[in-house]
Amino acid sequence: MLTMQDALLALTRYWTDRGCMIMQPFNTEVGAGTLNPATVLRVLGPEPWRVAYVEPSVRPDDSRYGQNPNRLQTHTQFQVILKPDPGNAQELYLGSLAAIGVDTAAHDVRFVEDNWASPALGAWGLGWEVWLDGLEITQFTYFQQAGGQSLDAISVEITYGMERILMALQGVRHFSELTYAPGVSYGEVFGQSEYEMSRYYLDDADIDTVRRMYADYAGEARRLIDARLPVPAHSYVLKCSHAFNILDSRGAVSTTERATSFAQMRGLSREVAALWRERREELGHPLGIAEPPAPAVAATGGAPVVAPSTLLFEIGTEELPAVEVTRTIAAVRAGLVERLAATRLTHGEVRVTGTPRRIVAVVDEVAPREPDVERVVRGPRASAAYDAAGAPTKAALGFARGQGADAADLRTVDHRGVEHVALVRTDTGRDALEVLAGLLGDVVAGLRGERNMRWNDPALSFSRPVRWLVALLGETVVPVAVASLAAGRTTRGHRRAGSPLIEVGQAAGYPELLAAHGILLDPAERREVIVERAAKLTANQGGHIDPVADAGTLAEVTNLVEYPRPLLGAFEARFLELPAEILTTVMRKHQRYLPVRDSSGQLLPAFVAVPDGQVDEALVRAGNEDVIRARFADAAFFYDADVTVGLETFRANLARLTFEQRLGSVADRADRIGALARALADEIGLVDDERVTLDRAAALAKFDLATQMVIELSSLAGTMAREYARRAGETEAVALALFEMELPRRAGDELPASTPGALLALADRLDLLVGLFALDAAPTGSSDPFGLRRAALGAAAILAGQPRLAGLSVADLLARAAQRTPVPVSAEALQAAEVFVRGRYAQQLLDSGVDHRLVTAVGPLTGTPVRAADTLATLRTLLEQPGFAVLTAALQRVRRIVPAGTPATVDAARLTEPAAARLLGAVTDLAARLTTGTAPAGTAPGAVPLAELVAAATAVELPAAVDGFFDGLMVMDPDPAVRAARLGLLARIRDLTAGTLDWEALG
Amino acid sequence: MLTMQDALLALTRYWTDRGCMIMQPFNTEVGAGTLNPATVLRVLGPEPWRVAYVEPSVRPDDSRYGQNPNRLQTHTQFQVILKPDPGNAQELYLGSLAAIGVDTAAHDVRFVEDNWASPALGAWGLGWEVWLDGLEITQFTYFQQAGGQSLDAISVEITYGMERILMALQGVRHFSELTYAPGVSYGEVFGQSEYEMSRYYLDDADIDTVRRMYADYAGEARRLIDARLPVPAHSYVLKCSHAFNILDSRGAVSTTERATSFAQMRGLSREVAALWRERREELGHPLGIAEPPAPAVAATGGAPVVAPSTLLFEIGTEELPAVEVTRTIAAVRAGLVERLAATRLTHGEVRVTGTPRRIVAVVDEVAPREPDVERVVRGPRASAAYDAAGAPTKAALGFARGQGADAADLRTVDHRGVEHVALVRTDTGRDALEVLAGLLGDVVAGLRGERNMRWNDPALSFSRPVRWLVALLGETVVPVAVASLAAGRTTRGHRRAGSPLIEVGQAAGYPELLAAHGILLDPAERREVIVERAAKLTANQGGHIDPVADAGTLAEVTNLVEYPRPLLGAFEARFLELPAEILTTVMRKHQRYLPVRDSSGQLLPAFVAVPDGQVDEALVRAGNEDVIRARFADAAFFYDADVTVGLETFRANLARLTFEQRLGSVADRADRIGALARALADEIGLVDDERVTLDRAAALAKFDLATQMVIELSSLAGTMAREYARRAGETEAVALALFEMELPRRAGDELPASTPGALLALADRLDLLVGLFALDAAPTGSSDPFGLRRAALGAAAILAGQPRLAGLSVADLLARAAQRTPVPVSAEALQAAEVFVRGRYAQQLLDSGVDHRLVTAVGPLTGTPVRAADTLATLRTLLEQPGFAVLTAALQRVRRIVPAGTPATVDAARLTEPAAARLLGAVTDLAARLTTGTAPAGTAPGAVPLAELVAAATAVELPAAVDGFFDGLMVMDPDPAVRAARLGLLARIRDLTAGTLDWEALG
Repeated sequence: MLTMQDALLALTRYWTDRGCMIMQPFNTEVGAGTLNPATVLRVLGPEPWRVAYVEPSVRPDDSRYGQNPNRLQTHTQFQVILKPDPGNAQELYLGSLAAIGVDTAAHDVRFVEDNWASPALGAWGLGWEVWLDGLEITQFTYFQQAGGQSLDAISVEITYGMERILMALQGVRHFSELTYAPGVSYGEVFGQSEYEMSRYYLDDADIDTVRRMYADYAGEARRLIDARLPVPAHSYVLKCSHAFNILDSRGAVSTTERATSFAQMRGLSREVAALWRERREELGHPLGIAEPPAPAVAATGGAPVVAPSTLLFEIGTEELPAVEVTRTIAAVRAGLVERLAATRLTHGEVRVTGTPRRIVAVVDEVAPREPDVERVVRGPRASAAYDAAGAPTKAALGFARGQGADAADLRTVDHRGVEHVALVRTDTGRDALEVLAGLLGDVVAGLRGERNMRWNDPALSFSRPVRWLVALLGETVVPVAVASLAAGRTTRGHRRAGSPLIEVGQAAGYPELLAAHGILLDPAERREVIVERAAKLTANQGGHIDPVADAGTLAEVTNLVEYPRPLLGAFEARFLELPAEILTTVMRKHQRYLPVRDSSGQLLPAFVAVPDGQVDEALVRAGNEDVIRARFADAAFFYDADVTVGLETFRANLARLTFEQRLGSVADRADRIGALARALADEIGLVDDERVTLDRAAALAKFDLATQMVIELSSLAGTMAREYARRAGETEAVALALFEMELPRRAGDELPASTPGALLALADRLDLLVGLFALDAAPTGSSDPFGLRRAALGAAAILAGQPRLAGLSVADLLARAAQRTPVPVSAEALQAAEVFVRGRYAQQLLDSGVDHRLVTAVGPLTGTPVRAADTLATLRTLLEQPGFAVLTAALQRVRRIVPAGTPATVDAARLTEPAAARLLGAVTDLAARLTTGTAPAGTAPGAVPLAELVAAATAVELPAAVDGFFDGLMVMDPDPAVRAARLGLLARIRDLTAGTLDWEALG
Repeated sequence: MLTMQDALLALTRYWTDRGCMIMQPFNTEVGAGTLNPATVLRVLGPEPWRVAYVEPSVRPDDSRYGQNPNRLQTHTQFQVILKPDPGNAQELYLGSLAAIGVDTAAHDVRFVEDNWASPALGAWGLGWEVWLDGLEITQFTYFQQAGGQSLDAISVEITYGMERILMALQGVRHFSELTYAPGVSYGEVFGQSEYEMSRYYLDDADIDTVRRMYADYAGEARRLIDARLPVPAHSYVLKCSHAFNILDSRGAVSTTERATSFAQMRGLSREVAALWRERREELGHPLGIAEPPAPAVAATGGAPVVAPSTLLFEIGTEELPAVEVTRTIAAVRAGLVERLAATRLTHGEVRVTGTPRRIVAVVDEVAPREPDVERVVRGPRASAAYDAAGAPTKAALGFARGQGADAADLRTVDHRGVEHVALVRTDTGRDALEVLAGLLGDVVAGLRGERNMRWNDPALSFSRPVRWLVALLGETVVPVAVASLAAGRTTRGHRRAGSPLIEVGQAAGYPELLAAHGILLDPAERREVIVERAAKLTANQGGHIDPVADAGTLAEVTNLVEYPRPLLGAFEARFLELPAEILTTVMRKHQRYLPVRDSSGQLLPAFVAVPDGQVDEALVRAGNEDVIRARFADAAFFYDADVTVGLETFRANLARLTFEQRLGSVADRADRIGALARALADEIGLVDDERVTLDRAAALAKFDLATQMVIELSSLAGTMAREYARRAGETEAVALALFEMELPRRAGDELPASTPGALLALADRLDLLVGLFALDAAPTGSSDPFGLRRAALGAAAILAGQPRLAGLSVADLLARAAQRTPVPVSAEALQAAEVFVRGRYAQQLLDSGVDHRLVTAVGPLTGTPVRAADTLATLRTLLEQPGFAVLTAALQRVRRIVPAGTPATVDAARLTEPAAARLLGAVTDLAARLTTGTAPAGTAPGAVPLAELVAAATAVELPAAVDGFFDGLMVMDPDPAVRAARLGLLARIRDLTAGTLDWEALG
């Protein structure tokens, strides 16, 4: 059996044999090998660097007293950095797995998109988590930025999770059972330390002391940066980070403190990184400069293509993210079509398909050459081109010479009835190989994903590295050369077969050739294979997968493989006692498994996993089953622990979670939310059952934030509240209200349906907004650590969707929340919060596709979103009616002429002209109708609902009266009294229609 | 070429192949691999533990900006722990050297005594530094105690200094030139970090911040101990230690702070260790219990010994310290002689010799058996033994039966003239093998060195482990079995030959047998080989070694080898520019080389090293030359740097060294010393040249403490002051005074000869004593961090040796020093300091062999040591004179009768009886003589020098007068007035003689 230490030694040997230096773990606590200066500083700048080292990585948050089978506060990473990207890092990595005894032909080893970012380090990269039979064993990243610095030479980072790998290889289910060394278990060696360090991080660390340490470390880092010493400065940044992590695992970090600390650490990291680069430059880059690969030379000397032939173009990549497969297929198709259209090459159908490792375009019947074409170049008028003697004039000669032609070649053409001299030029068609070479090169150079990276080829940028190109026109290689890549006729086979090099004889029949090598090019075919095979597998169990409900997962797994080989795995039935949401979340989101259900839709203890290629099915099934068992066991562990605790206890425990120093604990916040929700309930007259529900739900509000399950899987907040409330015997209405108070969780998410749920959800968001605005912590730029944008949008969406709350304006609601906020809320803060909520709501309308004009038009109403929403709906109908345009024009005319500040005083004695009298009558009538209308209580005077206003204005024929007034009278009468009376009347119209809409916006 | 990382991998592989687990460096800064919990905690308790790991060890003090060729703030240790001691750790270790390419047959690899102790850890052990051709490459220790806990199972710790080993193997002279990995130098990888971390540790660390960190760490450690969590507590103790080290390298640690911090860290370490043991016990010792080796079974079945034969007894050990070789030879000889004498075995001469690896006893002509002896057992009187009929009585029968004999065997013997019955019993002599087996076993069990250790055999304890026994009587194995060791006939050869097992056929001729195997048993012979060979080697160079001056080194090297193979090495002549003291200190103390001098006694650029056994001489010479070059280069580096700096600058730089927070910097202290010395000079009227010298030396006092050389080699304080003062052009007298002010450096050291030197030395010690006593920091128990005992003794010794200072009393001097002390000095503190100085002086007199009575007698004079010394000298003479005993008796008689508090009022009118009048006359005469005598100014009235007092008392016939007084009169006359007069007269005698001596002590 391979022991843990054997594995560490084998990896060390493997990588040193491949030119890596051995480094040692860092001598201060780090959360990951990445933080060791041997990675985070060395990836900066142009110097080459290849290292491998072990890094015991400390994550206080993962402390579990050594009890959780898979979670350790210190886990062992094996870290490799290859700088610059050697171009074959994936293959080197797969070789390292073989070196520790992983049969990469039998196991389902996969590269699954996982992008890495460390805001605290100002670092990010693109790459994968590597799966071994569904188990994440390695993080594989192409670093793009570190310390806020874009990288000169791209590093590949490979981070092995040693405990996980060894647990899989040794087939044990608890880390403590691992054989660490011959005859010695992991638990025997590290068990005590796991327990005691967990105690420290979770229970015993002294918060004041650690907070002081944090400050001291930050101060020392600051001073060292000023002293231009990046090495010790970095060490202190790491100490900061660890101190912060301790505070965090002790539950002592409030949201503001987190934001402040992160900003501080990020700032320090950036300065350290910049300084390190400077210093290395000053030192003359002691390790030299990494050179990029040489530009490729295009293939030459293929057999000439003489007849229309099939074009094959394959772009070989490292594993693309699933969505990028789809996107890139479309983009390449569009790009090809467009670029071909810009040539004179004739061709047949353009088909593009692909897998995560290749995008393949096949174009039928591509002509071997462009046809030649004639082109007429017009010169001077014939009359000016020849003199009386018929000899060419200077003008004609000059024109001919300028075209490189002889005057004798000139002929005359008619242009708009005037004769001109002209030359006829023949544009010779280019050879297809030449045309395609340029065009296909452009396609590669133009590849872009949603997020793009660089690798060893500085001239390219794409979602993942492009590693090879196949370009054949018939049997001839198209001489494409782009950056360091030259197209040829060699493709690569399936990873299960070790990615063998395969020669491609001709373009035609390529999909079949690949199929023979176990690669299914067409996503639709792959999907079909999955669906059919899954159906067969599950039928035996009396179950099925649901291609509709699981369409997302299905689409994803289709593009995670080159040949799907679905298999049916089972898990222990006891896990079915867990809420289905937990099980499906884990299966879909974490494992990309398709859940299996019986005919009634109930989950069965089974799943369909989709390995890639011809794996050892028994082995891979067992591996996947181990992984899901561990994950479910984790969840069950939390669930079982949680259900032994009363809801009130959880609620009380919220007092231990700091929300924000000045705003108190999460319990304080939950209290405020409950009180505010009850106050709003009073307002809208919530009674009977609903009231009882609200009061009970308010008393329990947010209790699930203290449960282990939610601490672990925060996306289950609300869901677990509902689940645990049900189990604890609360009414279904209370359970629902607790669930709904977390809605909407994101833009477009469902909204609370029940009024108690809506009130709580609203109160939650109002409290958050007012509290943070009071602390002057409004979001800035890309930073929104408290999720205030989401909260604002949520509040508006709830208000817009709940007619029972229609009487409440954003400003009122915020003011009510402010009464309970434990810090002073200035009028400015309150107003800023209101502007923020209304602005977010308007933005949301725009984002959902509402025309900009209409959004502006309802802008005045966003303070009561339900009215804005209603008005918008009304507007959409009215805009199709010609009468509305007339009304709008009339009102705009009125508004344009009335100077700001004009009082709406109606002096009837001076409005005696017929046109004036008519308008006066109409206005008086209109006002009467509106005051007896249905304007909701509490709205501003004149804030008349649009439909009502339009109906009334139409009834009194206001547009005609307005037009008559303007046509018949001069508003600006020389007599000031008359003028004032006329303007006053118009101002009256202005005011009567003012709150309904921003009429000017309807241009 | 073996790269650094190759070496680390090779060692890792070697030790894992031998059952060691791999551990990782610790994730907080440690000064040595020992501090990693994988050592310092795991060596506690009974669980077995075998580990190997790399430990980058951080020593802020060793920061040199990467410039010093051999000194790094972070050096790489490779650490191995074998617990329990496997019994062959040295051999395993030598195998590991072979594994990294060291030819242990060609190189001079030696185990040189080096005992390890870490007061901060409450830990110690015995062992060696391992030398490779004179270079210390490894620390090899048998741990005896850790965290103040005696160890249950003894661990072997092997710590390799990787940079040094690799520099030797790669033949480079600066660490930065080491090849770390293929194509990458150590400097390229670590150079920047060395520079920057040096900057941090030496220049840029913020002292207040780091001091606060220290306190925070200590607080956290304290809390964690209370929470019974030794693992995180230990981590915080390490953080304390590192913070302390940073403060220290920043020069911010005062002596009191050092003492306090060490005590605190030691206390915490002890608690952590105790707690760890408890916790492991509570956990049921997860790794099991290490079992000691089984007791040995003695050899049996040898050929019987029938004739007197030679006894050979060899105790095979791991390398004994040189002094222990000599001690043990003597002890084994004495033990054998004594034990043999307690048997009836006849034998010839007992000869014991030995080497560091074996103590060999040879006893000639040991009889094969003890002779039988007869013994008479006396019974009842004959008269009671036989009845009238001559038949044995009950008494006789009972006696016989009690002795297991028959009544018929009784005979009669005479006992004090009375006939008794008796039995004659024969005590059969025991077989020599039996007798010797017990006796030799006892010798082994009774072995004791000056410091003793335990190893894997819990029944034994000695200076180093005993690993084999050879015991032969003639050709027969003596069946010795002690603990796990059984004697046999197998010895081990020389380490150069790989310690081959050698069968010993017979006892006779053993020294010759060993000589044939390259081992010279007799130390005298080894010494002779060294001296002769060295003479030959040096003669070629026109030089010689000095066996007298270097007797100590010679004696040491004689017992560091089993066969000396002296070789002559050279160093660069340029190093001769360094002061000879530096060169000889390095050669003798650090390298155990014999310096080579020319006929005028000047050093030559050469040395004699004494490798052990048949090494590759060229290789070993080159290695030794590299080592001494590096050491001298180090010294030259400091020297050259120092001589560019002016003395005043150094003196000013003392302000940067904190002495003690409240007592200020070292510069403050030097100022006080100078001022005090000048005040004392005023006092004793120092004038002219001496005064000029004193003033100048006072201005420079202690400047050399700021020099790099003294910072590096603190034993050169004073020596370097003299050297640098000379070079700077100061007068020889000033240079000498600066040297002498550091004298005496230890008990028995030379004293200042010049008065300026003595005054400065005295002032130095007085300032120290008063300052620390004022702070209530008097030494307690074994703790004397400020060296106050040495200071007190020095002050007394200087006073005792300097007649010009005779007028100054300890109390006066301390009071003068107190006037300059920057903290209040209470009367109690001053008195305590005086008592302390006087007590130390008295103790020193006792230690130097002065009779306890005499020390007590001069006790009252220790306040002026010069007087005590004089009096002591006088006393020694007087004690041989009978008259002095008479005087003493008379004075004691007087003192006994006079009650305490009796006033010395002489009422002559009532002293008219002849005896009284005679005494009155004698006393009056005596007083007159004494007042006109030579009592030094400033001494207490009556404190008459002894010689003078005795002369005067003799002249006035005081003893006779006293005797006559007592014989003729009753002192306690009934008339109170008479009684008072008589007592008054006696009290006058008492007072006149009071200060001279404590007369009662002369019993």
